[in-house]
Amino acid sequence: MEWHLSAGRFVTYARSVSELLKAEKAEEGDMIKVLTNGKEHVGILMPHHDFSDPDTVVLKLKSGYNIGVRLAEGSKVTVVRKVEKKGRHFKAKEIDPSKKNVAVIGTGGTIASYVDYRTGAVHPALSAEDLVATVPEMADICNVKARVLFSIFSENMDVQHWQELAGAVVDQLNSGDEGCIIPHGTDTMGYTSAALSFMLESLPRPVLLVGAQRSSDRPSSDAYTNLLASARFCVQSDAAEVFILMHHTSSDTVAAVHRGTRVRKMHTSRRDAFESVNEPPVALVDFEGGIKFNSAYRKKSSGKVAFKPDMEKEVALIHFYPGMSPEAFEKLMGSHNGVVISGSGLGHVSADMVKVLKRTVDKGIPVVMTSQCLYGSVNLNVYYTGRDLLTAGVIPGGDTLPETALIKLMWGLANTNGEEELRKVMVTNIRGELSDRREIDD
Amino acid sequence: MEWHLSAGRFVTYARSVSELLKAEKAEEGDMIKVLTNGKEHVGILMPHHDFSDPDTVVLKLKSGYNIGVRLAEGSKVTVVRKVEKKGRHFKAKEIDPSKKNVAVIGTGGTIASYVDYRTGAVHPALSAEDLVATVPEMADICNVKARVLFSIFSENMDVQHWQELAGAVVDQLNSGDEGCIIPHGTDTMGYTSAALSFMLESLPRPVLLVGAQRSSDRPSSDAYTNLLASARFCVQSDAAEVFILMHHTSSDTVAAVHRGTRVRKMHTSRRDAFESVNEPPVALVDFEGGIKFNSAYRKKSSGKVAFKPDMEKEVALIHFYPGMSPEAFEKLMGSHNGVVISGSGLGHVSADMVKVLKRTVDKGIPVVMTSQCLYGSVNLNVYYTGRDLLTAGVIPGGDTLPETALIKLMWGLANTNGEEELRKVMVTNIRGELSDRREIDD
Repeated sequence: MEWHLSAGRFVTYARSVSELLKAEKAEEGDMIKVLTNGKEHVGILMPHHDFSDPDTVVLKLKSGYNIGVRLAEGSKVTVVRKVEKKGRHFKAKEIDPSKKNVAVIGTGGTIASYVDYRTGAVHPALSAEDLVATVPEMADICNVKARVLFSIFSENMDVQHWQELAGAVVDQLNSGDEGCIIPHGTDTMGYTSAALSFMLESLPRPVLLVGAQRSSDRPSSDAYTNLLASARFCVQSDAAEVFILMHHTSSDTVAAVHRGTRVRKMHTSRRDAFESVNEPPVALVDFEGGIKFNSAYRKKSSGKVAFKPDMEKEVALIHFYPGMSPEAFEKLMGSHNGVVISGSGLGHVSADMVKVLKRTVDKGIPVVMTSQCLYGSVNLNVYYTGRDLLTAGVIPGGDTLPETALIKLMWGLANTNGEEELRKVMVTNIRGELSDRREIDD
Repeated sequence: MEWHLSAGRFVTYARSVSELLKAEKAEEGDMIKVLTNGKEHVGILMPHHDFSDPDTVVLKLKSGYNIGVRLAEGSKVTVVRKVEKKGRHFKAKEIDPSKKNVAVIGTGGTIASYVDYRTGAVHPALSAEDLVATVPEMADICNVKARVLFSIFSENMDVQHWQELAGAVVDQLNSGDEGCIIPHGTDTMGYTSAALSFMLESLPRPVLLVGAQRSSDRPSSDAYTNLLASARFCVQSDAAEVFILMHHTSSDTVAAVHRGTRVRKMHTSRRDAFESVNEPPVALVDFEGGIKFNSAYRKKSSGKVAFKPDMEKEVALIHFYPGMSPEAFEKLMGSHNGVVISGSGLGHVSADMVKVLKRTVDKGIPVVMTSQCLYGSVNLNVYYTGRDLLTAGVIPGGDTLPETALIKLMWGLANTNGEEELRKVMVTNIRGELSDRREIDD
């Protein structure tokens, strides 16, 4: 069974539809005729994308309008005219020496699927070059150097992918590129941005992860605006951190630039799904013009990236809940080399779990406490439970997000020597992930 | 070691301070003299509360003003005058037959700690009667029937506490009370409200859980306003569900009434920490006047509560993250009788974890998918991963919060017979926890 967003076609169709199209050798871009339920439809077969129904083929009619036709048993498909294979529709532009180079490193995800509506051309939706070709305005801003690194659903990203991706960024930035844009699936984009943040030290120029909540074949797609805003931010701003750029509102007006360690996907489907937690977005990029910074940020420099890709893979993130089984979770923790707890309120767990955490720490497995509230800060000095956790040796995560604390602990374990040094790293702000304030209050 | 918010005094002092006070037999309410760092302070010893520093005693000066005095080595304490023990300062009012009865069932938490600033009287802060006595205006609205059920930090609440609490509510409502107010620690108040929501069927009158983010000895305490608004909502509205009532903003102007299955603590410390997720608060209660409803709700009736307290305790809530160990989590799931996953995006996990979930379902352990985004809805029909999860037999949780899905699965397992019936309950809206819409979009 395949979970990858495969380069093959019809990958997300129901099997019956896929087989019907294959039997007729109908390919994307072909003019086809569909006979279903006694009705006939003629149009260009469009790529099937993530948000489409598996039983439905999308046809671009002569009018330019797209319709979805649901295939049922007995439906017939015939090819009226094969697509003209003329290769890439957009030629790679010549390098313009007056412009800066920006790397685009493709990883997959919804953003990597698109159709060019202006030309009607159908693209296989997987090459980063094709992707940036849908945004020709990017070439007015910079020389785009596009490459595909992966083509996967972001829920399948793991530590090795982060390391490979970070390495690719280092190559690009250390060869002088003005920035890296990384189209990425939104599901785990916040984890990847945190991982890159820690792995890339002394960053001289920006790294922007950018996603889309609507695939590019939908009129409401946010891929185009987000990519264009990313290019502008790379070239026109002086910021040099790992960021996520996504819609700031559900309308196409402004993008938010979130710090890579402070950002979380907070809605399953809205275009403005990403939110900075415990700080405002670092900047807003108006789709029509200016870039406005909300807070301090790392500035561009001429140095090289220091590459620190090592990570301890066996770290667990555990959400505390009332009545959780101390025995079962003690076993789980025991099979890891580090644990992040997403505790209740200011960073609490039940009395039973306090004992489990103490024994876990005593085994030499570091435990970091964060809050499932997400907003605000852990404070283990307020209540008995918190003080017992401190006594047990639990490390307070401050206002670091649970997911970011997970990544930081993975990175910290691999980049420090011994308990004391790790503890110091975890309670110190390294990449903007932690406020100096002990508590964020109203 | 004790984690309970004990009825004993000085429970949250540092040991050295506690011992110093004990040695001098200084009790709360005593006029004491403190000599520290060459300075002398005289005042009434106030109770030590959750947000205070462990080394600091709070004295109420003659002026009525409170000061904190930090004790150090060499500090001296002497008792100037013992507190007059005259028992309860507020007499229980006579039952007014023209007014409705409202039950107040104390469980502990920050809200249960208070000092009466108007009289200077010091209360041990644990009796529900004392608690409501701090809000004498409640007696203008209803006859308050106060009782203490527990006195614990809410992170120590578990299934048995929920069952006992639900039973107490049934007793009160079935004896004719107009509503139940449950002061509760805020950490796990959302879990308790969900548990009561499912356990109490055909609710004829409202149950309001109410907390405070500031203990009552702080000028900024939200205990008073929240309790008073709860009494007004019980008596003056016609709503009959399980709700959480907390500040709607960080100022003292409006309370929000959240549906018990839709609410989550979203900030560690703000007074407006609670938010309704995927719907607006059911109602807003102006601290000065009116009650405004935002959406449909269950109306009061004359029936009895149907008590359905059974719960399967061995249910796990698991947060998906990239790189999580399939082996370790498969073992964890195998030791439970039900599993709720807080997946990424529309409800996804990595390909490895899809296989683990399939094997878990095949063992007869139901798995419910929710989203760690919190906002929006799971939709397993969009991507490959989702469809594989459906094929594996994973139950989609729609827009039910992960924590509410956990409680619902605990309840569903104990109140249904067999897989099919459980699945039907999980995908059906039972207590307002699930929208009929398949996807909440922008």
